[in-house]
Amino acid sequence: MGTNTMGRRIQLGLIGGGPGSVIGETHRIAARLDGHYDIVAAALSSNAERARQAAADLFIAPERAYASWRQMLDTEAARTDRIDAVAIMTPNDSHHAICMLALERGFHVICDKPLANDLAQARDIAARVKATQAEFCVTYCYSGFPMVRQARDMIRAGELGEIRQVHLQYVQSYLAHRDLPAGWRTEAGRAGSSLVLMDIGTHAFHLGAFVTGMDVMRLCADVGSAIPGRTIDDYVSALLRYENGARGSLWVTNAAAGSEHGLSFRVHGDKGGLEWHQEEPNRLIHRRQDAFEQIITRRLGPATSEGAQRSTRIAIGHPEGYLEAFANLYTEFAQRVAARMGGCPVDDSPTLFPGVSDGVKGLAFVAASVKSMATGGWQDVERV
Amino acid sequence: MGTNTMGRRIQLGLIGGGPGSVIGETHRIAARLDGHYDIVAAALSSNAERARQAAADLFIAPERAYASWRQMLDTEAARTDRIDAVAIMTPNDSHHAICMLALERGFHVICDKPLANDLAQARDIAARVKATQAEFCVTYCYSGFPMVRQARDMIRAGELGEIRQVHLQYVQSYLAHRDLPAGWRTEAGRAGSSLVLMDIGTHAFHLGAFVTGMDVMRLCADVGSAIPGRTIDDYVSALLRYENGARGSLWVTNAAAGSEHGLSFRVHGDKGGLEWHQEEPNRLIHRRQDAFEQIITRRLGPATSEGAQRSTRIAIGHPEGYLEAFANLYTEFAQRVAARMGGCPVDDSPTLFPGVSDGVKGLAFVAASVKSMATGGWQDVERV
Amino acid sequence: MGTNTMGRRIQLGLIGGGPGSVIGETHRIAARLDGHYDIVAAALSSNAERARQAAADLFIAPERAYASWRQMLDTEAARTDRIDAVAIMTPNDSHHAICMLALERGFHVICDKPLANDLAQARDIAARVKATQAEFCVTYCYSGFPMVRQARDMIRAGELGEIRQVHLQYVQSYLAHRDLPAGWRTEAGRAGSSLVLMDIGTHAFHLGAFVTGMDVMRLCADVGSAIPGRTIDDYVSALLRYENGARGSLWVTNAAAGSEHGLSFRVHGDKGGLEWHQEEPNRLIHRRQDAFEQIITRRLGPATSEGAQRSTRIAIGHPEGYLEAFANLYTEFAQRVAARMGGCPVDDSPTLFPGVSDGVKGLAFVAASVKSMATGGWQDVERV
Amino acid sequence: MGTNTMGRRIQLGLIGGGPGSVIGETHRIAARLDGHYDIVAAALSSNAERARQAAADLFIAPERAYASWRQMLDTEAARTDRIDAVAIMTPNDSHHAICMLALERGFHVICDKPLANDLAQARDIAARVKATQAEFCVTYCYSGFPMVRQARDMIRAGELGEIRQVHLQYVQSYLAHRDLPAGWRTEAGRAGSSLVLMDIGTHAFHLGAFVTGMDVMRLCADVGSAIPGRTIDDYVSALLRYENGARGSLWVTNAAAGSEHGLSFRVHGDKGGLEWHQEEPNRLIHRRQDAFEQIITRRLGPATSEGAQRSTRIAIGHPEGYLEAFANLYTEFAQRVAARMGGCPVDDSPTLFPGVSDGVKGLAFVAASVKSMATGGWQDVERV
Repeated sequence: MGTNTMGRRIQLGLIGGGPGSVIGETHRIAARLDGHYDIVAAALSSNAERARQAAADLFIAPERAYASWRQMLDTEAARTDRIDAVAIMTPNDSHHAICMLALERGFHVICDKPLANDLAQARDIAARVKATQAEFCVTYCYSGFPMVRQARDMIRAGELGEIRQVHLQYVQSYLAHRDLPAGWRTEAGRAGSSLVLMDIGTHAFHLGAFVTGMDVMRLCADVGSAIPGRTIDDYVSALLRYENGARGSLWVTNAAAGSEHGLSFRVHGDKGGLEWHQEEPNRLIHRRQDAFEQIITRRLGPATSEGAQRSTRIAIGHPEGYLEAFANLYTEFAQRVAARMGGCPVDDSPTLFPGVSDGVKGLAFVAASVKSMATGGWQDVERV
Repeated sequence: MGTNTMGRRIQLGLIGGGPGSVIGETHRIAARLDGHYDIVAAALSSNAERARQAAADLFIAPERAYASWRQMLDTEAARTDRIDAVAIMTPNDSHHAICMLALERGFHVICDKPLANDLAQARDIAARVKATQAEFCVTYCYSGFPMVRQARDMIRAGELGEIRQVHLQYVQSYLAHRDLPAGWRTEAGRAGSSLVLMDIGTHAFHLGAFVTGMDVMRLCADVGSAIPGRTIDDYVSALLRYENGARGSLWVTNAAAGSEHGLSFRVHGDKGGLEWHQEEPNRLIHRRQDAFEQIITRRLGPATSEGAQRSTRIAIGHPEGYLEAFANLYTEFAQRVAARMGGCPVDDSPTLFPGVSDGVKGLAFVAASVKSMATGGWQDVERV
Repeated sequence: MGTNTMGRRIQLGLIGGGPGSVIGETHRIAARLDGHYDIVAAALSSNAERARQAAADLFIAPERAYASWRQMLDTEAARTDRIDAVAIMTPNDSHHAICMLALERGFHVICDKPLANDLAQARDIAARVKATQAEFCVTYCYSGFPMVRQARDMIRAGELGEIRQVHLQYVQSYLAHRDLPAGWRTEAGRAGSSLVLMDIGTHAFHLGAFVTGMDVMRLCADVGSAIPGRTIDDYVSALLRYENGARGSLWVTNAAAGSEHGLSFRVHGDKGGLEWHQEEPNRLIHRRQDAFEQIITRRLGPATSEGAQRSTRIAIGHPEGYLEAFANLYTEFAQRVAARMGGCPVDDSPTLFPGVSDGVKGLAFVAASVKSMATGGWQDVERV
Repeated sequence: MGTNTMGRRIQLGLIGGGPGSVIGETHRIAARLDGHYDIVAAALSSNAERARQAAADLFIAPERAYASWRQMLDTEAARTDRIDAVAIMTPNDSHHAICMLALERGFHVICDKPLANDLAQARDIAARVKATQAEFCVTYCYSGFPMVRQARDMIRAGELGEIRQVHLQYVQSYLAHRDLPAGWRTEAGRAGSSLVLMDIGTHAFHLGAFVTGMDVMRLCADVGSAIPGRTIDDYVSALLRYENGARGSLWVTNAAAGSEHGLSFRVHGDKGGLEWHQEEPNRLIHRRQDAFEQIITRRLGPATSEGAQRSTRIAIGHPEGYLEAFANLYTEFAQRVAARMGGCPVDDSPTLFPGVSDGVKGLAFVAASVKSMATGGWQDVERV
């Protein structure tokens, strides 16, 4: 997955993702996998002792193990060997404050999704990104899978013809038990206006936009809970209308008992359709109107698209998974940052990794869905 | 698949389904498969010569090869060896007239779906069925699959807990080409108020009701065409609310290029979920909240439900298909008719085969969907 | 599935397959499905009362319900409305005697597999078929599936290039429990020299020959039991060498606990490979060396082969199964018999349904496998 | 994936795997993924300039970028900050010499498979491992998949009962084209006595031994080429007999046109069977004799085995792949080395990662197969 001509790895600081955090471990593996980063600073926990121990486990120097993100951003900004970038994996309600300061201190930023707790916060961050010209990545990680990029490339190349129908699903069982798990997601307000929309709805929404290259203009949503008496949203189903008039629908829930991961898309154009399931990420089903169904895989022989190949480390049927997809965002971000820092030529094409505007669009989707539920009818999605 | 004690097969007359008709061949195979019927009369075409030749190909006696269904119903009613039942497989807009006369002449009736061209016609037929006490079957044939019945039995037995979410799909490519195929379906008015709703929407709707045992109370539908400029509906996506408060959604289209058959359901309750696809009908996916996913098949060893077993002819992994499912309706109808005619004890349990009220419900769904599209919001589904 | 110009259906007599017989019900459905036969005579059981009742259940006239196959063959031969053909579904050790008399009495014959109890008997039957010029079908029923015929047609057309590798499996669990089920199959001698080879091994062997069009010349087999202490063979694995030098292998067992049906083939030639599984019979996996994997199905749009289309009743993704495959043999046999009896033009091409020489080849495979096991090395397969 | 109490990462030197090497990139990612290693020295190419540039791309200090493995082993052995371990990914015919010197110089060793070019070399290395007490890993990487370990744990726990049947496959298309690709694998002698056996046969063989915990005692093999005129072996099919009397078979080829990766196992015991395919590594098919088929996955809810959990980084249906499996060996090796070097308590249980005796067994399998082909019959596999 390439190298850079800075003569050194990018120096990365972590905010959040301490002991027991799944997403923290994911970000760290993603940073390590292709060898583009040294993780040299961290604010892993607001508990000083836990922060120190967790940093030691990562072989981070004690003086760069911080107990607060403010302290880390301020201290690192003053070091001569300061970090180049920060990766943020804290609860949603802290993203805005951390992003704003990190950008102000001159760091490039990788921020977990959703970008912020509401649309206004998201627009605020976007404005500062524009002002600082920093590199910014929102980890809508599923866009990093080779076969997702294959789908995007095929659609852009017109292999499906004009897109006519889109169907998105993200059907999980995380909240299927009547008793809610403890954690910030299920605390009032911390996850934003609607848990299911913020937590996984924005993933599905971004995936649809990423592969089709189209924005949703209007929607009519049924948002609520599948579990009687529950006050937190765990279900959304929506009718969608895309900018070109294409119709779509979406079924997202984290309360479908027995389900596993369940993220998928299915897109149809004039000439055929594509279907992809995250549980079997290395297969892309290509339904063709005038030929038999084709299974596109990362294999010897027939060529996958340029975007798929760039996102693949090994071939001949060796499966890659979620961590490699996540690492693709990190690696592409590293390449941009290294280019920006003078290491190698800047690639002028838009980034494949999701940027701040994708983050804003996610919050616009959440806002429109909530409004549609309140009014019982179709709503426009605010343009970004 | 049993026998009867009438000492003879049920004498069946066919209306429609002449040369080149796929559905005609399907009905005939369904009637023959288990040996419960003799096909002895037919009005296969309104062209007298074609009707005669088609009947001869079926080894029907020349004097019982009719060129009109009115003639057949009137003439057969007067014969001492008259037919016991008629099977109707004509275009939608003729169902009402044929059913009304067939019932009046004292025949039991098998009618292809949808029952009629609109809700008023359907209610009219239902009233006459009630008045005549005839046996009546609407061939929502997908309810005949063993694994569909397995799903229904499991849900009735509470194996999923209370049902919370339902998702129905019927995604075909029949009308994906810009040019519409010729035929009565695409002639204005002949298929009813909305082609996609009448032709395949009612199938998906019935399947959801059959397996869950629940009716849809309200819905919000997006009905129209996926192909710009087309005036015939080929797309419907809907948000559903069931009688117990469960949420559902539905995606039905015959214009998704590259698709094959595409009928499926996915249902989730408190304890787990079930998923079934018509293309692989002998597998029922059982997702369990506290155990691994299970694939229920018609095999040696573990027992399938009583309803599945009754609907299965062979086991040990030998696949059955669409024709066997269709034949299950014919065989169950034959058993009721034979019982009614004094052959064997009447089974008092509700029929497994879809009856006239299922037919009426289908048209109520169509009416509510069309109304929802016109108003842009939620509509009640008229109760049957 | 066509008609005939005899002006009547073929008159069929059944031998064996009485109450409780799965294979009996299968043959009867196969005979009825396409409407080419009237089942008018039967020797369903050697118990006179059971034979009478079983025949009555099939609406067979009492005077044609026979308690012995000899009586049936002799009596029917003398009737003016005599049966045209007999279908034999008795235990293996009776096939030879019944076939020989049926042929002598001038009937066309459908015989279940394996053709006989040993190679000598099989050759004896083949000689009489040749002498009488009767039509003869051995029900290697899996060759009736549309996708099996698609594979055969593709290979004959060179779409895989020269065939290089063949792998056959038939992995069941029927005898996986230590206690053997009762029945003639597990009685010494009645199933022939090796239960697993006779019962399912010959099916897998025929399937390989049918799709490749090639005979096995030599083999090295491991035959025995997977269950310690069992004297009946339930396992065979073999190395195969085909006439063109292609290599093959075979794994056949009815003692693999948990297995379902498990019949499959996988064939590779210079350009690609094909794989088919009986449990999902409507899909043929086509692996292509220079293109993505393709799933061949019976669908709208791309055309299946002539042999697949001839074997298909309904399309658009409606699955057909085992009974339709079995019925394909019956229907093709009916067309030959009708042609022979003057009804319609005789098709001079070799029959698609397996004939007596296929039956002989099956027994030659059994003989070579048993000999290989005894000697511990490679053996020639006797040529037919 | 844990940490260690050495207070630093393990210092690793690489031998082979330079520019363009797929296996080199795989080893490096595996070393980086969990953060247990610093790659600080390398002999990546025998071309000095290429070795220097490749090392620079990995941010290795110039003075530790070696142009020869002998130089690296000698020089590093003398450094105070010497490497702890070496990872060898050179052509097969160099493994013996490099392993012997690395062990002599006191390094722990990770060596790619097969261990050596013949059985004698392999035994030689094993003797030196025993003498030096070094940690030694042979990268039979497929044993690192969580679901492979799940299978192993289930079998050890008796969940399948006594194992009765084993079927192994590794069916690739790498050599399906008549023209052989260039490279050391296809140069006479460099890959050992039989390319297909050395290259992928040993993988399949180890996988069978790993999951069943049983050794093969005797075998009868058909080894050769599927491509006429080719002198390099690309096909092996074998009949196997395990130590407990269980029967097995194996089909391994790299010349099946159109195939992808194709490594799989299927194992049956008294109570059921397990099947796994490397292309879909996160699913383990569990066929149960008295219950429905179960799909075991790394998901929320039902617990996977201890071995599977230890080998999993993320759950909830997020797929892991080949690189994570490979990294599992590296991480487990790191934990042993760190323990040995005083960092944390030594785990006395046998290593999960394959050791030198697994490497020797692989060569014994190759030797027995070649001998069986020469004699045309069964051969004993030499015991290790």
